[in-house]
Amino acid sequence: MKQKGILMVLSGFSGAGKGTLIKALLKKYNEYALSISMTTRAPREGERDGVEYFFTTREKFEETIVDNGLIEYALYCGNYYGTPRAYVEEQMAAGKNVILEIEIQGALKIKEKFPDSLLVFVTPPSAEELKRRLEGRGTESADVIAQRLARATEESEGIEAYDYIVVNDNLDECVEELHRLVDASRRAPVRCQELIKEIREELKGFAKGAK
Amino acid sequence: MKQKGILMVLSGFSGAGKGTLIKALLKKYNEYALSISMTTRAPREGERDGVEYFFTTREKFEETIVDNGLIEYALYCGNYYGTPRAYVEEQMAAGKNVILEIEIQGALKIKEKFPDSLLVFVTPPSAEELKRRLEGRGTESADVIAQRLARATEESEGIEAYDYIVVNDNLDECVEELHRLVDASRRAPVRCQELIKEIREELKGFAKGAK
Repeated sequence: MKQKGILMVLSGFSGAGKGTLIKALLKKYNEYALSISMTTRAPREGERDGVEYFFTTREKFEETIVDNGLIEYALYCGNYYGTPRAYVEEQMAAGKNVILEIEIQGALKIKEKFPDSLLVFVTPPSAEELKRRLEGRGTESADVIAQRLARATEESEGIEAYDYIVVNDNLDECVEELHRLVDASRRAPVRCQELIKEIREELKGFAKGAK
Repeated sequence: MKQKGILMVLSGFSGAGKGTLIKALLKKYNEYALSISMTTRAPREGERDGVEYFFTTREKFEETIVDNGLIEYALYCGNYYGTPRAYVEEQMAAGKNVILEIEIQGALKIKEKFPDSLLVFVTPPSAEELKRRLEGRGTESADVIAQRLARATEESEGIEAYDYIVVNDNLDECVEELHRLVDASRRAPVRCQELIKEIREELKGFAKGAK
């Protein structure tokens, strides 16, 4: 029997390198699949439907909510964002670990609904390095950088809700570490429910047999 | 700076092969140290002071309690059993992961006092296999085996309190898995408190600087 995949939520500061990390993980290991969010916001320049997001109308999005077609969704700045259920479930059943890149509120919702999901927080080695990376992009104004850092300060308050923190210092090492953590997480009781149940039932069977 | 060692509690059914697993881990990796319990019970034939246990008097044991010299202790069948603090703290400070082999009540006490301790439960691949191993020893009466299995049934109720479950099917693989789990556990927020604190403080510093 094929082992069911893990639902992995990846969050982290803007500038932590989540996107690059996910791309490298998908490229290196065949057992991961990336969930693509559905949104009602308009595509930005260069964004392609089915790549960055599935772009849809508000009406269609609300229909999908009603049909229980999303595993989580949120309304953000007047636009809906959500995670389509079908893709996640299909891929997990096929043994793929499905990656959701979402922020902490979404992550907590996922954990509540799927206690066996794995929450991973990605951070640069230090806040100093985070600042350097944001400034180094050279595309953001000082204001935007200050906003990102303020947001990072807020986000940092939620780190304890995550199962693991990975430090993205060296990309290759970080990919390997993330992969190892997914593997290790399979040994947490919440992801060994079947084994635990079997052992308990068998043991109870012996006790009855002995009476 | 040397990385502080992890306090690892190892529990598991009698017959799971904890002893063999610990010996193999200590032999293969230099970074582990085994904590030896102190007890007031009399040595059994073949038991050596400082190897299986530190054997001591009731008076000396109670003095050690008063001096806060134990990280946990219990009274069991009229005898004290406890974990000497000094050895654990010295070894951890030296970067060694210290292994305590104790049962679930002790494990929970340790977790309460040391939230960053790592609780690992060792199990054979199935209860059937556990029974086979207990019977295969050929040294235990049917009554004793029935008692062990009854105790295993009780213990199995506590598995969810552990951080990880390892299945001891193949010894070498199990040693490797255990080692990988200790490594992975370093990325749990509870064991990254320093990093989290540093990042938070730095981020707050930027926010103040920006005002």
